[in-house]
Amino acid sequence: MDEFELIRRYFVSQPVIRPDVRIPIGDDAAVTRVPPGYELVVTTDVLVAGVHFFADADPGGIGHKSLAVNLSDLAAMGAEPAWFLLDLTLPAADATWLQQFAEGMHGLARQYGVQLIGGDTSRGPLSIAITAMGFAPEGRALTRGGAKVGDRIAVTGTLGDAALALAAVQGATHLASGQKASIMHRLERPMPRVAEGMAMRDYASSAVDISDGLIADLSHILKASGVGARLIRESIPLSETYRAHLVQAGWEPALAGGDDYELCVTVPEASLPNLQEIARRQGFALTVIGEIMSGGGVSVVDAAGQPYHYNAIGHNHFA
Amino acid sequence: MDEFELIRRYFVSQPVIRPDVRIPIGDDAAVTRVPPGYELVVTTDVLVAGVHFFADADPGGIGHKSLAVNLSDLAAMGAEPAWFLLDLTLPAADATWLQQFAEGMHGLARQYGVQLIGGDTSRGPLSIAITAMGFAPEGRALTRGGAKVGDRIAVTGTLGDAALALAAVQGATHLASGQKASIMHRLERPMPRVAEGMAMRDYASSAVDISDGLIADLSHILKASGVGARLIRESIPLSETYRAHLVQAGWEPALAGGDDYELCVTVPEASLPNLQEIARRQGFALTVIGEIMSGGGVSVVDAAGQPYHYNAIGHNHFA
Repeated sequence: MDEFELIRRYFVSQPVIRPDVRIPIGDDAAVTRVPPGYELVVTTDVLVAGVHFFADADPGGIGHKSLAVNLSDLAAMGAEPAWFLLDLTLPAADATWLQQFAEGMHGLARQYGVQLIGGDTSRGPLSIAITAMGFAPEGRALTRGGAKVGDRIAVTGTLGDAALALAAVQGATHLASGQKASIMHRLERPMPRVAEGMAMRDYASSAVDISDGLIADLSHILKASGVGARLIRESIPLSETYRAHLVQAGWEPALAGGDDYELCVTVPEASLPNLQEIARRQGFALTVIGEIMSGGGVSVVDAAGQPYHYNAIGHNHFA
Repeated sequence: MDEFELIRRYFVSQPVIRPDVRIPIGDDAAVTRVPPGYELVVTTDVLVAGVHFFADADPGGIGHKSLAVNLSDLAAMGAEPAWFLLDLTLPAADATWLQQFAEGMHGLARQYGVQLIGGDTSRGPLSIAITAMGFAPEGRALTRGGAKVGDRIAVTGTLGDAALALAAVQGATHLASGQKASIMHRLERPMPRVAEGMAMRDYASSAVDISDGLIADLSHILKASGVGARLIRESIPLSETYRAHLVQAGWEPALAGGDDYELCVTVPEASLPNLQEIARRQGFALTVIGEIMSGGGVSVVDAAGQPYHYNAIGHNHFA
């Protein structure tokens, strides 16, 4: 068996088989069916060794995260994920690395019921490009463009843990080992908020996933919607570990750190109680952190209502 | 304007706007509509500098070819191409390179009416991953799996020109400059056989595109269909330039050279006259080169019916 076959072995046999995939991976292209009354939602992200992850990082984590960041984009549209394709370039076909990478990727795919329907592999510097696809009922996908003045701004989960974990890995912040483990999975194995996104489809006026930091990603909503935002710093949901390090770490990881993969949504005031009830019933955290204002840009105030001047530390892979 | 924005500029404004794209590039994901009665056909290919093309190759050609190889996979399914996504990693945001790359890609996209609906860019070693999508009427996409004993084997266009051009670039074959120009575009700017693939949807029993060489790609059909093949060497369609170099170059570029991006199909004998009439009417070349046999593998005979033993020179990026 040549190395090419070795690679295929890890991806052709995979754990999810969906009835809407008529021709699976292995032909010139896959053939699938979008349910009647639904639109197709499509996104792609590329992760490059040395830019998005350390080349020697846990291969299972790389496999998990490569798919997670794409499912997170679908979640931000309120879409139900269905299929994905993988382009993998790697310097050599290392069986152990490939097996762990595939396990990480397939493990997440299994949890969300998404099927790998195509891919390509090549020798080359380590990088992973994934395209993920899903559905949303016609005309009902969430976008960045619908926020209105007066809408409440809410986020799922807790913010800043991934940035704090990265700071710990880089030695910039010290965490006790128990604390480190509790937030390290936020950096290495983020869970896309798929059910949350679908639940918000009927209530939110706009949505974005938080990949580059709250301020940076909320700004996409503001720009697309032609509005501004006012955030109350003390409302931002923090994990227990983060809260224990708040004095040392400051608010920047939560405001401007990347890789959280929570959702940030705007919700008309009238819809908020219904959405909060849904969140309670489905068991996910949803925290109101501010309000959409006229004008543009994000202002942050502290608990006393005083302006807080944050430092932008968002991502730019070419900066 | 930062470099990130510079890159986006070349891809967000693009020449094709389709009515079936409801939310275009620029949100967390694109939202599109598959026409009722049609299935979605999806493929992906990655091209890496130093593996699939020379790093200093004409950027326009790289842009063209990256999209072309994906459209060729859709053509092999008999699909009508509609949308594509681009993941581009490059060492630095070189405006001249990007402009030429985008022009090459957009030029081909315009010819086939395919719209760029998503993408991602990152710093990293030069590589291009594209996912292309199209439609085919329900249940009617061509696959590799339908060839039957007695079916005729046919190919579009001429074979071996890209391999001959590559040999000339590498100095292994000498071509006069006029001849070189005539086949160099086959290597650098291959044209996917989209109309041909759609025309064959109602007549062919199986199809594949010739990217790794006739023998290698026909073997995919044979394996998927559980049959063998007999090819008549002298039937293989060659360009004038190739024919002038046949003694020197031999039959291997046509039999086993890669990058032709013609289609190889099998056609039931009863359907062949109708398909040939369609080809005549639509003005594309379709040449019968052999027949599907029982058993497995490809045997090649010369004009006198004697076995011809070819050398496999197919691609394997990890060999």
